[in-house]
Amino acid sequence: MEVLYVLLVLLVATRLVGEVAVRLGQPALVGELLAGVLLGIVVTNHGAAFPVLAELPDDPVFDAITDLGIFFLMLMAGLDLRPWKLAEASGRAIVIAVGGLALPLALGIGVGGWLLPASELRSAQALFIGAALAVTAVPVSVGVLLSMGRLDTSAGRLIVSAAIVDDVLSLLLLAILTAVLQTGHQPDTAALLTLAGRVALYFAIAILIGRFLFPWLGGKIGALRGHEFEFSFLILAALAYAVLAEALSMHFLIGAFLAGLFFVRNTIDEETYDDVFGKVSALTHGFFAPVFFASIGIHVSGEALIQAPAFLATLVLAATAGKLLGAGIPARLSGMDARDSLAVGIGMNARGAVELIVADVALRAGLFSVPDPPGAIVASLYSAIVITAITTTLFTPIGLKWLYRGSDPFPDDDAQSAAPPPATKSDRAVDVST
Amino acid sequence: MEVLYVLLVLLVATRLVGEVAVRLGQPALVGELLAGVLLGIVVTNHGAAFPVLAELPDDPVFDAITDLGIFFLMLMAGLDLRPWKLAEASGRAIVIAVGGLALPLALGIGVGGWLLPASELRSAQALFIGAALAVTAVPVSVGVLLSMGRLDTSAGRLIVSAAIVDDVLSLLLLAILTAVLQTGHQPDTAALLTLAGRVALYFAIAILIGRFLFPWLGGKIGALRGHEFEFSFLILAALAYAVLAEALSMHFLIGAFLAGLFFVRNTIDEETYDDVFGKVSALTHGFFAPVFFASIGIHVSGEALIQAPAFLATLVLAATAGKLLGAGIPARLSGMDARDSLAVGIGMNARGAVELIVADVALRAGLFSVPDPPGAIVASLYSAIVITAITTTLFTPIGLKWLYRGSDPFPDDDAQSAAPPPATKSDRAVDVST
Repeated sequence: MEVLYVLLVLLVATRLVGEVAVRLGQPALVGELLAGVLLGIVVTNHGAAFPVLAELPDDPVFDAITDLGIFFLMLMAGLDLRPWKLAEASGRAIVIAVGGLALPLALGIGVGGWLLPASELRSAQALFIGAALAVTAVPVSVGVLLSMGRLDTSAGRLIVSAAIVDDVLSLLLLAILTAVLQTGHQPDTAALLTLAGRVALYFAIAILIGRFLFPWLGGKIGALRGHEFEFSFLILAALAYAVLAEALSMHFLIGAFLAGLFFVRNTIDEETYDDVFGKVSALTHGFFAPVFFASIGIHVSGEALIQAPAFLATLVLAATAGKLLGAGIPARLSGMDARDSLAVGIGMNARGAVELIVADVALRAGLFSVPDPPGAIVASLYSAIVITAITTTLFTPIGLKWLYRGSDPFPDDDAQSAAPPPATKSDRAVDVST
Repeated sequence: MEVLYVLLVLLVATRLVGEVAVRLGQPALVGELLAGVLLGIVVTNHGAAFPVLAELPDDPVFDAITDLGIFFLMLMAGLDLRPWKLAEASGRAIVIAVGGLALPLALGIGVGGWLLPASELRSAQALFIGAALAVTAVPVSVGVLLSMGRLDTSAGRLIVSAAIVDDVLSLLLLAILTAVLQTGHQPDTAALLTLAGRVALYFAIAILIGRFLFPWLGGKIGALRGHEFEFSFLILAALAYAVLAEALSMHFLIGAFLAGLFFVRNTIDEETYDDVFGKVSALTHGFFAPVFFASIGIHVSGEALIQAPAFLATLVLAATAGKLLGAGIPARLSGMDARDSLAVGIGMNARGAVELIVADVALRAGLFSVPDPPGAIVASLYSAIVITAITTTLFTPIGLKWLYRGSDPFPDDDAQSAAPPPATKSDRAVDVST
């Protein structure tokens, strides 16, 4: 029964603070994280009054719920990302995406190499910092741009395309990171080759199943008489992809994401697709995502701010500079004006769920336990990364609103497109905003 | 990650066998239970090959998932049960319901008193048997009657009304049983009075909140800007009701059920209600219910059939005779013909989810651990109760079809009502059929 009590506390806290965040023009995710941080502070200081909550971070049930949170968030991310949008991404968007990924990655690895203490996990920790800084959160950017009525401008479209490309590249990065964490601390060439073979095998299987078996099975579903089979079908497919990913040394989230990606409108009929999409969205945004973000927040310790403030400031700076310059300069070179180029950089700077999932994966893989004693930097590394995610995500809506203050939305579009998009579309886009 | 693997195995097995059951004209629940029993047999005999599955019955994560399964099943049961249907139940339905509850209850307690070995838990065990036999599964009866086109006949309507009254009475019985399990083995008068006071307090609070706070909060939800708030609202309300029930010595499932009951169409607008209902239904029938029924099945041991076959036969006989006579005789006395009276008895004989939940609650409360060693009867009690549920539930569709073989459906209604009910209604009714 404890699980119901825990869920009650987490859901009440996250939904309340999340609502406050949304009203302040921030993504709900920021509020949900802060709710977790607040709960963490309460529990640290008054743990005796809330024994169940105090034991939460070490509870296997809570770990399982967090796993399910990651699973549904990535499934949702896959569902949201349409493969043909990837195919549509222009050469310009790809250059911006690669720049916006490579520079913060390099800066993150550089900061790690410079400041981390020597240990057997040092290079893995540096790679982790780079990966965490390199991530871009498509949902946050989409939500902010939509709320400003700027999604359908040339800068808006470019931000979204580039962020989508970034998302996929980040996952590849995460696959490498997970493998490095699993195969040992300093993988040799043979281990890396084995890993590359497994990754290739996994993607080959996943793509074959997704392209051929999925639509075939989808066509059969209508003939089944059991109840809610379409919903079960998607969950089952995602579970199967996830378990296969683990079996081949990758993180299960890759599987959940790919299953979402292959569950497209033509797999099953359109109406059923929309129905299933709505159900997964409710489960994710109404239940698992808030609980997951709270769980991330609970693990944050304010000591990072006190123990290693310079390190934290360096991370935030490297993250922001990496995106502003890495994405902004290619945008400017491609012929955008200065303001739109800056907007591209700011829009790509939100990190959101994927960075937090990366942090959670690394935390549970024991990445922050070495050297022993860890010293101020490593001890505060997890918290510093989460605080970086919160800070950069907060910065995106504030920065974009400041950049376009007083200016007319849709400067390069006709008046028609200034009208809000049709209901379903806008629902869909808001779906993404946590 | 183990949790995803476990969920994959359970969902694949239950949905496959469940589909076979539905195609054979049986409720999906029967197939899902059997899938669990089969998994249990595989795991018992080849546990070394499936170490994760073999440890399942003792896994805290699995316990938590089972709790969530009970939670969502009871929430769904509450959502399905409309309070005004209770108010509509005729005097005749109430007499049939009370007869159909009291006789199997008495027979169950009698069988327990007769066959159970002496121990400090003997009276609690006898009460458990009585409560398990007394339960009626509204969903199973509705599903079967609907599939036969007999839901809208006078016998059909009477079965459903009486079964609904039984459902509510069963929950009261379960509240008493849980309290007896919690307050100690032989509660004295003071303990029983304290308990009665708590139950009264709980229902008073629950009804006040449900009648006044719920609709008020429901009206405010539309103004919130966070995503999927309506879904979260129902889940939050049910969690709050459940936690409060536990705090007042009742089982949390009472809270989930009541929250569903008070979440009626006028709490929020109709369209939102239908949307939230569909989402909870998907989550319950497409995910948690199959997993829960599988978990019940996994705990079943075929040894009950071998160790205590006479006891098992006595239970099935007492359960069936209790319903056939306890509900059938009042029906006959009220003026129905013999065949419809028998149909009422058979229709009330399906047990379904609530009996299984009662069994699960008792198992986890340690009811089957005394005396030590327990002897053949107590050792096989849990399995015998589950097998009784499966048997009586199987018997309902077979018995009703046999009873009405070759006869015209809707003998007492006009041709119009022989047409299938409108899509939404039929979806709703099938919703209930697990």
